[in-house]
Amino acid sequence: MKLLIADFVVPCNASFEIIEKGAVAFDETIIDVGQSEDLKQKYPHAELIETPPNSVILPGLINSHVHLEFSANQSMLRYGDFIPWLRSVIKHREELSALATTELITCKLHEMLKSGTTTLGAISSFGADLEACSQTPQRVVYFNEVLGSVPIAVDAMYGDFRGRLEASKTFTCKRFIPAVSVHSPYSTHPILAKKALQIAKEEGCVVSTHFMESPAERAWIDEGKGDFETFFSAFNPHAKPMCSSVEFLELFEQNKTLFTHAVQATQNELEIIAEQKATLTHCPVSNRLLGVGKLDLEAVQKENINQTLGTDGLSSNTSLSLWDEMRSALMMHAECELSSLAKTLLQSVTCNAAKALQLPCGVLEKERYSDLIVATLPQACEKEDVALQLILHTHQTHLTFIDGEQPC
Amino acid sequence: MKLLIADFVVPCNASFEIIEKGAVAFDETIIDVGQSEDLKQKYPHAELIETPPNSVILPGLINSHVHLEFSANQSMLRYGDFIPWLRSVIKHREELSALATTELITCKLHEMLKSGTTTLGAISSFGADLEACSQTPQRVVYFNEVLGSVPIAVDAMYGDFRGRLEASKTFTCKRFIPAVSVHSPYSTHPILAKKALQIAKEEGCVVSTHFMESPAERAWIDEGKGDFETFFSAFNPHAKPMCSSVEFLELFEQNKTLFTHAVQATQNELEIIAEQKATLTHCPVSNRLLGVGKLDLEAVQKENINQTLGTDGLSSNTSLSLWDEMRSALMMHAECELSSLAKTLLQSVTCNAAKALQLPCGVLEKERYSDLIVATLPQACEKEDVALQLILHTHQTHLTFIDGEQPC
Repeated sequence: MKLLIADFVVPCNASFEIIEKGAVAFDETIIDVGQSEDLKQKYPHAELIETPPNSVILPGLINSHVHLEFSANQSMLRYGDFIPWLRSVIKHREELSALATTELITCKLHEMLKSGTTTLGAISSFGADLEACSQTPQRVVYFNEVLGSVPIAVDAMYGDFRGRLEASKTFTCKRFIPAVSVHSPYSTHPILAKKALQIAKEEGCVVSTHFMESPAERAWIDEGKGDFETFFSAFNPHAKPMCSSVEFLELFEQNKTLFTHAVQATQNELEIIAEQKATLTHCPVSNRLLGVGKLDLEAVQKENINQTLGTDGLSSNTSLSLWDEMRSALMMHAECELSSLAKTLLQSVTCNAAKALQLPCGVLEKERYSDLIVATLPQACEKEDVALQLILHTHQTHLTFIDGEQPC
Repeated sequence: MKLLIADFVVPCNASFEIIEKGAVAFDETIIDVGQSEDLKQKYPHAELIETPPNSVILPGLINSHVHLEFSANQSMLRYGDFIPWLRSVIKHREELSALATTELITCKLHEMLKSGTTTLGAISSFGADLEACSQTPQRVVYFNEVLGSVPIAVDAMYGDFRGRLEASKTFTCKRFIPAVSVHSPYSTHPILAKKALQIAKEEGCVVSTHFMESPAERAWIDEGKGDFETFFSAFNPHAKPMCSSVEFLELFEQNKTLFTHAVQATQNELEIIAEQKATLTHCPVSNRLLGVGKLDLEAVQKENINQTLGTDGLSSNTSLSLWDEMRSALMMHAECELSSLAKTLLQSVTCNAAKALQLPCGVLEKERYSDLIVATLPQACEKEDVALQLILHTHQTHLTFIDGEQPC
């Protein structure tokens, strides 16, 4: 048993308590959390791990939504508007795919680990990230993505998806959990979505989907108009939306779903997401770089929707660090009270994300997996300010444990 | 003569032209800017300096507003609301002052230099940053600040200010320019302000002042109410605002002024600032961390006010890098079109800032000082995206020249 002690412990539970002079006793799972003096007495034979002054123990961070297959982009893609960005992705896809080797993705996963991300939801379009994700020390929920809008190709697309899902299942273990992603309302035929969601339900997989990311998606789904009309007409002059937004949402009624983006979601759609007890994954930097608008956090919180945070891929971000993402979120949502937003953000990458991904980590409490990190603040700070100061100052962790062990 | 060539040259002039395969010929001042092939032919004997692929030559950056005397803060001060922050500054002032040695300030200036800041407007409250600022390789406009609200102490405060101003003047040279700062409407008696502004006018100094930073300042100046009423009543139960906001602005009619913050400024006040052909210095991160609101960029641009950018001090920021500040501004002003905001921000830290500080740098054009930097993008990018990608990716410069020489 290890006993890790630090000036602060932030368990990241719902009440967001902060323990001064705290400690966590753990082996593969967490055994106890409390005052360091108490735990030292209670577990006198534990291996004591001390930390520098102003250190904070918190759960390992969870990135709910990342596209690792686009990790090779740095400044190639065009930002500012969704459809021009999408066109630039298509233009550079082969080049970016060729560059996104297992070696590169492994390197990005390692950077994420150094920044404190111990679990990620990897959205996999092609399976090109399977090798890296199955070998990384982090916990990975591996979302095999399905898409395809041409009815005649539905069977082939489903076959491809099933092939990738089965391939990923051969790696299933405590740290690698296959799952299902339905790309979006504008790209995935409802028949295809239904079949994939049925499999997810049968196999107990969590599900991810992109939903109402852009004004272009809104205009297309609602009216068959806008930038997507122009975009799709190049492939099929008779293209029409495949379902309404509500019909799309209803496909997920029987699943445990993470709806990503929802920047352009209506009040009614947020209510449906809330009724499904689903999760909304916010990707603030991606939203900003693609010029799609800003998530209405107040509306999301009013509906009491479980909220998580994702970096999206390097195709629409410059960093896969959740600390960078949280710092950007603090700036973007300047209308939100700073200190409470800081707490909400930390919950979004810990307890809320663990709940969404149905994993027993993300909170420092008895019996949860021992995924925990130590971040060291540069100076003393008031107890009430720990969440905010952590977000403002943390780039890399001082220590990281996954299942109670320090990854190499 | 040196001839610096790069894939892109961004002169940062008003039209924001971008030269592909460009070059800058310079010695102490800039001699020529154009296509690299043309300039190589025109100046065959120049010392040729090549740069890595995807490099960009641009003017050295100008930080219009930085308080170096508070450089020792990292996580000590309380963020989220202005008056609690001010109380924490007062509480920790002695400790922070003792830690802000010439050595520490020199270190921060060096970090700023590495990030590409070749000129800064240093707001000096006590003169504790004089030694570091007078010795740094950067160009410094050194704003000696005056404040004091108690009528009986006005002469003493003025004497102290004059002493610091005179001390700073002994260092006057091409790279060290003494100037005047009037702290704010709530802290500086109009008599004191007038005397300082008269000196500034006589000596041809530019002037800086804080104006309408917080809702607390707004409520106090307009109505003598709010958080400042509570704050001031501890010192003087009969404290009243010393002038109206318009009276305060009118004090600066004869000066060349940088009004900093103005987050809570009214339309009428912005119009007065515009009429004075004054500058508005935006400090987005500071504004966010002190919870004072968000500058209405659209209103500022509508009034055609010269706009600059400042990091403020480490008392209300985690970085003195203008790249970090610009990245934060891109996130904060999510309603502004990304690409045009990127250009506006680069102009805010180059041509606009040079204009505000009345310095012949900040634009790559003939006869200006040769203050220039080279930043290298990680990948090729479209010409139209250079401004945005520079902001997204730059942390340190590849090369830096001040007055045509590379500082140590």
